[in-house]
Parts: sequence; C-alpha cells; structure tokens
Amino acid sequence: MKRKAQRRGEFDLIAKYFAPLARGEAGALGLTDDAAWLAPAAGHDFVVTTDAIVEGVHFLPGDPPASIAQKALRVNISDLAAKGAKPRAYVLTAILPSLTGDDWLAAFAGGLKQDQKRFGLTLIGGDTVSTRGPLTLSITAIGEVRCGRMVKRSGAQAGDDVWVSGTIGDAGLGLIQSTPQRLSLTAAHSRYLISRYQVPQPRLGLGMALVGLAHACIDVSDGLVADMGHICTASGVSMLINSADVPLSRAAAAAVAAGKVSIETLLTSGDDYELAFTAPQSARSRLAGIAARLKVKIARIGRAGEGEGVSVLDGDGKARQFERQGFTHF
Amino acid sequence: MKRKAQRRGEFDLIAKYFAPLARGEAGALGLTDDAAWLAPAAGHDFVVTTDAIVEGVHFLPGDPPASIAQKALRVNISDLAAKGAKPRAYVLTAILPSLTGDDWLAAFAGGLKQDQKRFGLTLIGGDTVSTRGPLTLSITAIGEVRCGRMVKRSGAQAGDDVWVSGTIGDAGLGLIQSTPQRLSLTAAHSRYLISRYQVPQPRLGLGMALVGLAHACIDVSDGLVADMGHICTASGVSMLINSADVPLSRAAAAAVAAGKVSIETLLTSGDDYELAFTAPQSARSRLAGIAARLKVKIARIGRAGEGEGVSVLDGDGKARQFERQGFTHF
Repeated sequence: MKRKAQRRGEFDLIAKYFAPLARGEAGALGLTDDAAWLAPAAGHDFVVTTDAIVEGVHFLPGDPPASIAQKALRVNISDLAAKGAKPRAYVLTAILPSLTGDDWLAAFAGGLKQDQKRFGLTLIGGDTVSTRGPLTLSITAIGEVRCGRMVKRSGAQAGDDVWVSGTIGDAGLGLIQSTPQRLSLTAAHSRYLISRYQVPQPRLGLGMALVGLAHACIDVSDGLVADMGHICTASGVSMLINSADVPLSRAAAAAVAAGKVSIETLLTSGDDYELAFTAPQSARSRLAGIAARLKVKIARIGRAGEGEGVSVLDGDGKARQFERQGFTHF
Repeated sequence: MKRKAQRRGEFDLIAKYFAPLARGEAGALGLTDDAAWLAPAAGHDFVVTTDAIVEGVHFLPGDPPASIAQKALRVNISDLAAKGAKPRAYVLTAILPSLTGDDWLAAFAGGLKQDQKRFGLTLIGGDTVSTRGPLTLSITAIGEVRCGRMVKRSGAQAGDDVWVSGTIGDAGLGLIQSTPQRLSLTAAHSRYLISRYQVPQPRLGLGMALVGLAHACIDVSDGLVADMGHICTASGVSMLINSADVPLSRAAAAAVAAGKVSIETLLTSGDDYELAFTAPQSARSRLAGIAARLKVKIARIGRAGEGEGVSVLDGDGKARQFERQGFTHF
C-alpha cells in the first residue's frame, strides 16, 4: 500500500482505511514500506493463491461494499481451505473508479476487518489504482500447511468416495434472483439464495481437518461438474456422481420441485465455494466424526473410478456425460 | 491460474501461454491446482510486494506487449531490490479487455519468460478475468532475504549519506516523449528516454548487496523528492539534497541545458525505479567497491539530519522545501 498512491488523497486513504488492517503482523510494517516480510511457522509451507473479482461479473454494482470486500477475500480463503491451509496474510490490489467515495471505502474496509477477525488473517500490503473501468479487486492470500501436506487436486484414486460439503447450486440461483430475470420464489428463499451468492462461506475448518485424510480437494467455483472434472483431469481418474445424492438447500429443492430450474443447472452453476473432495472408503467414519464436530454437513455423492471424465446419474438411473459446464445426454 | 477461467478459451489460454512459465518451481504444480505451495530457503524470510499497472496510466495503449509484461514484473522486482530480497516467485492477475488477441498474449508471455530468466523468478499462480475497462495487470512478487535482514524505509539515521543509483528523471521525460506534448529532443535521446519509461531496470544486484550496509532504502517510483520524503517520514529524519549532485542522463541533461525541462520536474517525476538509500559515512569505500564490482553508478547526493522533511539545494545554493510532488520556494 504505497507507491502508486500518487495523489495526496491516496496516501490518506491508505492511512485511514487500510493501515489499521495491518495490525497484528509485524512484517507488514503498518503498510509504510515497499514490501512486507513473512516467514512460515516452523514445520510449515506457505500456500499462495490469487483471485480477482470484477463488478458486473462476480458481483453487482448495487451489492453492499462490505459484502464485496468479503466476497473478494472469501473466494481466496476458500482456495486455502481446499488446500488444507490456515490463512495467515493477504495483499489487496483495489482498482477503483475515480468516484469511489469515503463512505463506500469505510464500509469496504469494515467488511475486510470483520473477515480478518473471523478467518484469522492480516493485510500485509497492496496497491490502489484508479480506473475508468469497473471496480476490480485482486487479492493474493497466503496460508500455512504442514510441510509437504497441501491437499492437491491430483491425489484422487479409483475407488475413492466423492464428497461435497453444504449444498450445491444456491449461488447460481442467487445470481439469477439478483437480476430482472429472477424466478418467482418465496421472498425468504430469494434472500437466502442471494446471500449465498453475495457472501460465500469458506469451509475453512473442514478443509484443515481434511489434511492427511482427503486424497484430493477443490472448492466448487466453476460448478460442481466442472470442478470434479478438474480433479479427474489432474488425478487421471473418472467419476460417477449420483445427482439424487447431491445436497440441495430447501430453497433450491423448492425451485427444482416447482420446475423453475433443472438439476443440471444447479450442478453446473458456479460460486458455491463448498469443498468437493475424494477420500478412501476407510475414511468414512472419521469424516462423519469431523462433520459432526465442526457442525458441517457433508454428503457422499459418488465414486471415482478408472478412466476419465465425469458422468452423472439422473433420478431415472440414466447416465449423462457432462462436458465442462455444458452436458450431453446419452 | 484456474478457477475464474469460466470459458473454454481461458483454460486453453492458461495452458498455452502461462503454464510453461511455471516450470522450475515444484510447488506451482504447473498452474493446475487452486494454489501453490512455497517455502523459503533455510534461514530466510519471504518478502512480499504487490503493484498493479493500468493502461493509460502506467503504460500506453500502443506499448509493445513484451514491454508491458516486463514493466508489470519489474516494478515489483524493483520493490524486492529495494528491500535487499532475491526474487523467487510471482502470481499474476491479468484483467484483459475481451478483444485481447492471441498475438498480443504470445508476445506478453514472451516478455514474462525473458524476465523470469533474467531475474530468476517463476510464475506460481494467477487469475485471468475479462473487463470492459482498460487492460490492468496486478502482480504479487515474493523474494527471499536472510531472516530479519530486510532493508526497510525506517532505518535512516541523522548523519547518514544519501545515495541514488543510475540517473533520475528519465522515465518522466520518456512519458512526455511518448505523447503529443513531446519536447523537441534528438531522436536518439527520445528513444533512450522512452525506453527508460517503458522498461525499468531494477537494481537487483545493488539492492541485494546493500543488505547489512544501507540503513534505509526505497525504489524511486513516486519521484526522488517524494520517495526521499517517505524515508524521512518512516525514519524520523530530515534530508538535504544537493540538486547539482543528482545524476542526470546525457539526454536529460541536454533537455535541462536547452531550457526544455526544469530540474524540479526531474526531481519530482516518477517511474525511475532507481534505488535511493542512506548509509553511514563509514560505508563509503565499501559502497564504491560494490558499485565498481556490479558496474552500477551510484552518486552521493545529500545528507540525512535531525528534524523532518526534504530540502533541496539548487545550483545557486538556495534551499527549496519540496512538499510531496510539488515544491515551494523560500
């Protein structure tokens, strides 16, 4: 948070809104230097991830600034969760339209502050630049995992169970409910789905508990089928998913039951930020214990096998081969 | 380099242009995972910095893609240099107008590849998103420095010599020469100045050699006077700079001699990416040895003292107090 701040106002902005977020990490130097220093805890590697969100693509112009801040941070924390890493620090590049006001920034920084406390990480640097384009936020997050233990996409084995946390498809429906094309659902269901779209809930505790237990893990952001495809590709396995076993929220289930949305749409819509992972069958009872202890729902939705690609069994027992976001019937 | 790649084309783009840049760092996993793992060399801290560059602000729409790539990377490498850190890895967020073509991307990746080899760092992750706004590149760079030895802005002491590498003001003139407001200089001088604006030369060897020798260091990006002000603020010292001692290139000196630009403009224009640092007088001979060994010119341009603020002595021996980018005569 420093050098590109070429106008007096940007130095003030950093001092006022962002420097307070750097407390608690000595190497951040209060955002007063060119860089921060950081060393992992003894016996740990750093895990580094980066994700950007763009107004009009990943959030909507009218979304509350605190929600936007939290989405920017949480999509990164979700990546750390998927790798079993404990969040430690992050840097933020805020690419702001020139008319971004103090009220917006104060609320935005407030959202970051809340989530720093909730997820245990600290701002250690950043950059603010002006744009004539849409508001864009790029975050690089750094977490810690025991040396050599990062949970990868590439470890799935034929015979593994396939699991997913929480419920699937809510964020995609929440995006639809945020637009003029919204479906006629109950107000309570709409509110729930929109909140799932606006503010993801990274499954951090679960992800950290999966270290040494899950063979492969990913966070569901491109859509369940696409993300399972990423694990299949990286691991050299195939997957069969039983669509009837994929957990849906009451809101999503009601929308499906009323014929307003198809299960295919839910399985291929993004931004859920649940964890999808594979584990050996021998891990079932330990996984049940972890889920109960953390009060996180996990569901066993399929099986990894030899070969390649993701197949989905529909309710009638017919297999559909999905190809990335799209899908084709057999 | 993964999740936000929601279109088939973006996966291909990553595989084709960016994944090859991840070779050489095992933890990068070929950009096929949600995150990378990274551990510092034994006895070292990581140094983390981030900087974004925006089309129309930090580079011009017609600039060569390889130069844009190198500027994006080098402004970050320059920060690492100023902290005495050896570059190790970086993540890239590329915010691209939707019409960005394959030719542009190939040349852009080529620029990154050249600089990775030159400066010894590896791409370990990133994100690509589309924008309707200007092309924007945000990089987070990670370097290594011996534990506890990062050179800060805050270590300057009253009595220290003030030093600067290379020549000052070239990049600011290069920006002017890139616009319709260009000054009438010789073609060779113009070309030189424009190259200084387009492609900074981070003083990496010098920065690493200054560990344990310089009391404080910064890279000159806001402008020499403003950046010296940052050291003064962080260190609680004042500075007196002799403008006649500030090194100018032949091109800049010719422009000043011809009355086309003032020395004040050169001292307050940004993007030079030279190192400005303070060191005790006892370090003079060692600094001379380092400069000779590395074939980098360094010049002693002033002295730190008690108090606060940066004063500049002009050629007539009159002191001017500069206030940030601007300045006021006494």
